Order: sequence, then structure tokens, then C-alpha cells
Amino acid sequence: MLTRDQVLHAAVRRLNSDPTTSMADLAAAIGISRATLNRHFASRDALLREIGERSLDHWDRSQRESGMAEAAESGDPEAIRDCLRELTRWFVENAEEFAYALANNRLEAMPELVERADVLADREVEFYAAAQRAGVLRSDVPARWIEHTIYGLMIAAREGLRRGDVARRDLEGLVLSTFLTGTGATPTASERQTR
Amino acid sequence: MLTRDQVLHAAVRRLNSDPTTSMADLAAAIGISRATLNRHFASRDALLREIGERSLDHWDRSQRESGMAEAAESGDPEAIRDCLRELTRWFVENAEEFAYALANNRLEAMPELVERADVLADREVEFYAAAQRAGVLRSDVPARWIEHTIYGLMIAAREGLRRGDVARRDLEGLVLSTFLTGTGATPTASERQTR
Repeated sequence: MLTRDQVLHAAVRRLNSDPTTSMADLAAAIGISRATLNRHFASRDALLREIGERSLDHWDRSQRESGMAEAAESGDPEAIRDCLRELTRWFVENAEEFAYALANNRLEAMPELVERADVLADREVEFYAAAQRAGVLRSDVPARWIEHTIYGLMIAAREGLRRGDVARRDLEGLVLSTFLTGTGATPTASERQTR
Repeated sequence: MLTRDQVLHAAVRRLNSDPTTSMADLAAAIGISRATLNRHFASRDALLREIGERSLDHWDRSQRESGMAEAAESGDPEAIRDCLRELTRWFVENAEEFAYALANNRLEAMPELVERADVLADREVEFYAAAQRAGVLRSDVPARWIEHTIYGLMIAAREGLRRGDVARRDLEGLVLSTFLTGTGATPTASERQTR
């Protein structure tokens, strides 16, 4: 018998490949009865809400476990760089599993999820601003733009995986180097990537 | 009386701020009767389909008008750089108006739209590969990753505008410089941005 967690993960995987899947088709894809699925999640909205909440739980944990607040507080470029790497690693690791929540319009209609996401985003923007002050990130763009850039690259990572265009193994390096140095060719690109 | 075009644009603006808006609420937001909205678009799906089709029409036109195929064919770095700038300008210009189509899960369930999007994406990937060969874009990443990066930055641009975090005037420069040079601070960043 599948645990609630296993059902949830299987549902997310299925929703990633077909976001319009109904509860009946989800049950079939997971290999459980519709009744069993409904015992875990009373409705499609309840399922989506839980996916959203877990995604926010993970995001919250990544901020705490990467020591984001402490790194920002310290103003130390090395600590900030390490934390950025840690955050990117986390984002990439979760891009597939929780990507559905990221791109799901339905969740935007759940105000308490949006509110929580705003608090987490604000915290992250503070960290990017600290990274700018420490000379780790460029300071000629709004810190909020940097946050949107990371979000966009997570969507890119999800799409790359979903369509089979990039190897999971390469993704962390791709995202981090694209985030820091972009996609333009320059004589110093390879030096900068290894920083 | 609003033209079909004006109704469509008003609907997209509304759907961008609340993607779950029903036909009844759309009609109210646009300021027309439900019957009038239905005369233009028989169903919500018909409306979404047309938004998707127009988005693809625009994308197609941007590829032709920027001379993408010719630039790729020429292999000339200057021509390729100009075309990249032109494409970015177009992407940013349309990020808001057609962003709904980009992030709309519902459209992924319309196979003929997905198929057409694939053809356009493939063409664009060929252009990025040519840009890599010409030394304009870095060649240590898959050309398909570059395409996902641009897509992700369009989502970032839409979010930045939607939430009021970036000025429309600044967006083209933000997207192009982030695409080419990333967000990391480097001694040479300002030189590279002006290339």
C-alpha cells in the first residue's frame, strides 16, 4: 500500500507531464482506486493545496538550512557565495518534484499560499541585496529582478528536464553558471565559471 | 463597441492578473455582457486557444522579421548579435501581452498548439547553435538549454512586470544583459554589457 507521501509524489510527477490530469486519471496513473486517492485528498483543490504547501515548506527549509540569514548578516562574500551555491543546489534538486506548484495558476488563487510565498520571496530578496552589497552579485539591477531571474531559471530547469533536453547530472552546473555568468561567450567565461 | 481584438487584449490582461477568471468575470472586467463575450468566443477554451494561436503567430513573425534564419546561415557574429538583440526586444515587448499563453497549463493540452510551438522552438535552437559556432554564445552548454533560459527569462520578465518590481523601460536591458552576462558581479561586467 502506498503511503500518503508516495501518493503525493506520484501525483506531482503525473501533473508535471500533464497538468490537466483529472482525479480519476491521476488515480489510474498512480495505480490506486479513485476511492483510495479520495481518502488521501478529498478534492483536486485539496491535493493542489498540499503540493503548494509542501513546496513552500521546502523553500522555507532551504533558506534556513543554507544559513541564508546568517550569510546576509555577515556580509562575507565567501559565506554569501557558498550560500548561493547551496540555494541553487536546492532549487535544482526540487525543480522537478515541486515544479508543478511553481507554474500552477490554480495556486495563485489560494491567497494564504500567495501570502506565505511573498514572505519567503521578501527574505530571499534581502539576501540578494546583501550579496549585491558584498560585491558577489551585480548591483546595477534591482535585487527583486535577481529573484525573478532565479525563478525563471527554475522554470527553465523544469522544462529542460521535462522535455529531456538536459541531463539531471548537468543541471546544477548549468543553472549556477547561467545565473552568475549568463550565456554569452567571452574570453573569461571559463575562468569565471570556476570561481 | 469593442472590436474582437480589443476584447482579446482586455481578456489577456485580466487573465494575467487572475488566471482563473471565469467567462462571466471576464465579461464583467472587460465591461461587456456575457452574451457579447460569447459571440466573440464560444467558450473559455476557444478564447484560450486563440490567445495561444496569436502568441505563436507573433513568435513566428519575430523569427522572420528579425532575420533569424539568414543570420544563422551567414555565421556572421555581428549579424547574429543584432538578431539576438532584436529577438530579445520582441520577447520583452510581448512578455506581458502574451505571457498568459506561456505559462498556461491548459494550452499544453492542445496538441496542435504544442506541435507548432515545437517547430518554432526547434528553429530557434538552430539559431542558438549557430550563435555558439560563431562565438557569440558560450558553447559549453546545450543549445536547447539556451532556449530554456530565454523562456525562463520571459517568465521572469512577466513576473517582474506583473508584480511591479521592474520598470517596463528597464526590462529590455535587464533581460538582455542577464541573458548574456548573468547576475554575478565581475570586474569586467560593465564592459561586457556594453558589447
